[in-house]
Amino acid sequence: MQPSYDGLINLAKGYPFPEAIPSDALTQAMKRLSEVEGDVAFQYDGSPATEYLKDWLKAEMMRRNSWRTGDDILLTSGALQGLDLLCRIFLDERSAVLIQAPTYMEAIEVCRNYTDHIVTFDTVAEDANAVERELRLTEANGHPVRLIYVGTSFQNPTGYVMSPEFRRDLVALAEKYDAFIAEDGAYDQLWFEEPPPLLKSFDSLGRTMYLGTFSKTLAPGLRVGWACGSSVLTDLMGRFKKDLGNPLVTGMVSYVIQFHNYDAHLQQLRAAYRRRAALMEFALVEWMPPECQWLPSQGGYYHWLSYPAVVDGERLRARSYDQGVNFLPGRHFYPHAPRDVSALRVSFSYESERNLVEGVKRLGNVIREMLAGS
Amino acid sequence: MQPSYDGLINLAKGYPFPEAIPSDALTQAMKRLSEVEGDVAFQYDGSPATEYLKDWLKAEMMRRNSWRTGDDILLTSGALQGLDLLCRIFLDERSAVLIQAPTYMEAIEVCRNYTDHIVTFDTVAEDANAVERELRLTEANGHPVRLIYVGTSFQNPTGYVMSPEFRRDLVALAEKYDAFIAEDGAYDQLWFEEPPPLLKSFDSLGRTMYLGTFSKTLAPGLRVGWACGSSVLTDLMGRFKKDLGNPLVTGMVSYVIQFHNYDAHLQQLRAAYRRRAALMEFALVEWMPPECQWLPSQGGYYHWLSYPAVVDGERLRARSYDQGVNFLPGRHFYPHAPRDVSALRVSFSYESERNLVEGVKRLGNVIREMLAGS
Repeated sequence: MQPSYDGLINLAKGYPFPEAIPSDALTQAMKRLSEVEGDVAFQYDGSPATEYLKDWLKAEMMRRNSWRTGDDILLTSGALQGLDLLCRIFLDERSAVLIQAPTYMEAIEVCRNYTDHIVTFDTVAEDANAVERELRLTEANGHPVRLIYVGTSFQNPTGYVMSPEFRRDLVALAEKYDAFIAEDGAYDQLWFEEPPPLLKSFDSLGRTMYLGTFSKTLAPGLRVGWACGSSVLTDLMGRFKKDLGNPLVTGMVSYVIQFHNYDAHLQQLRAAYRRRAALMEFALVEWMPPECQWLPSQGGYYHWLSYPAVVDGERLRARSYDQGVNFLPGRHFYPHAPRDVSALRVSFSYESERNLVEGVKRLGNVIREMLAGS
Repeated sequence: MQPSYDGLINLAKGYPFPEAIPSDALTQAMKRLSEVEGDVAFQYDGSPATEYLKDWLKAEMMRRNSWRTGDDILLTSGALQGLDLLCRIFLDERSAVLIQAPTYMEAIEVCRNYTDHIVTFDTVAEDANAVERELRLTEANGHPVRLIYVGTSFQNPTGYVMSPEFRRDLVALAEKYDAFIAEDGAYDQLWFEEPPPLLKSFDSLGRTMYLGTFSKTLAPGLRVGWACGSSVLTDLMGRFKKDLGNPLVTGMVSYVIQFHNYDAHLQQLRAAYRRRAALMEFALVEWMPPECQWLPSQGGYYHWLSYPAVVDGERLRARSYDQGVNFLPGRHFYPHAPRDVSALRVSFSYESERNLVEGVKRLGNVIREMLAGS
């Protein structure tokens, strides 16, 4: 939890809002699991419901045109464990990983545990030539890129949705340079207008592992996610995954999906986040100075706000905090950040609707003051 | 779950018996957690109850004389994840790990993920000279032992309790040869007469990480364990532990400990397992031929049964299965097993008391027949 005081509006938090978490359904699921299956759900192997969940995920991946013959599902502790296991398989000290900039900060930390060679491409530019230059250069330097990590839809932190064309480009480049793709789909169920296709659905070559999670659609604290891709790889990942899974919580998630109308829950979530995104956008238009820029949100949790370079990021954060609003500075989302990237992430997922508007107002006022004073 | 048919008595399973799992208390804990803390328990950081659990574990380690200034607690996914993280820190392809033979089979798998150099010492011989010879020889071969993994009390699979003297010897040898000790205490709360001291309590040098778990005392499927040792190491382990913990289940365990009289639960468990161990010993005395040997049980889950070398292990297993009883062959517990180690593990933890006796009877009859026929 971020430090918090009375009146602080925390736009830094990438958490679901409290009512988004179906805690009653989860509690009922555990009660039912315990009644129906007795001790079985509490033992090492967990409940037979785990099989149901894996079958359901397989059907889901099929529905999204992202299941190839020979694929399998591996349950993981959130999407991040999937990335960790792929790093363990594909990276060594010599090889490199290619990631977006900006990207999910925890993913950067995971990659750093495996290699010093982290190279990047611009998240929103969609410049396949630039990506290829990076792949070629890194290989020429003796550090071939073996893994490409991308957030494809409503990416953290930008909210960006990668075009189908660029997804195809990445698959082709992975094939050409013998790299493997880790597709992080953490937010992709939270679309506002229409579901984006998965990058994996464009991959006929089996070079993509899709990493999914229930963190944004049920609750982060469950730590239930999955990896979907070639069974050769999921088997290997499973061998390294020595935490023995999470049988009880997996059973709970399976019961919620079977007995608590998960589809209706997702529809409610989409409507709620769409409304929150719209409110935040309304506030951005209303309160930000014209020098600031952001993308309209199509889903997920975040707005990525660019501000003029004359505004010092450290001072912006400190002054905002004094005014009772917090955000995540842009430099957190870069592996090799300059001191100030003149951008920040605000989340519309957690604070109350009223606070979202008030928080943006406070932040806008601070930026205006700093522009006027600088 | 093992394959099972009507009438198969499964003495292979290292599971708690169904009534040993306080599933009502766990369900109530989740309900209460959800009512008291709302969404907080379901978010990434989990409930404040996690802090309570860590403080409680610290107090517990102090009570067992195993807390040094500068120690810390890291919550893990069972004891096994603790070992995995220590392997990741201490082992590379060149260095070696020293383990008991026989030892916990999953631990062997974890070590194999990190090194080919797995050396052993006899679990029950308590021969410090032999251990030192192994340490010296391995170092001379260019593969210094950096990690020593031991089950110290009611060890899996032997049930053996290491003497205080040998615990001291191991600490001294670790210091002399610059190795680190991973002490697996998975079963040490399940003592029948008196609690054995921890190896860590003899370590004034900070060379031991204690690995604990609630798998045997609450439920395996929770996947809640902890590592206790130097904070320098727990910090590093935490950096590699990229599954972000298991906030919801951690909160449940914390509530069970706070509100459901965990001490009384432990006392009931000890009485139940003591009774089960005694029943199995009674049956061993009654039904095993005089050529078979086993140690009297002082705690934990297992008896380790040695039988004459003329009995073929594969045939013993097949015939026993035909007679409706299953066990774990001894060779599973060795990293470099000969074809047959003339020993097997039977568990008194899972089957009904009636089945424990009947299972041993069936197994004894098969061994007697094979001895008579061979």
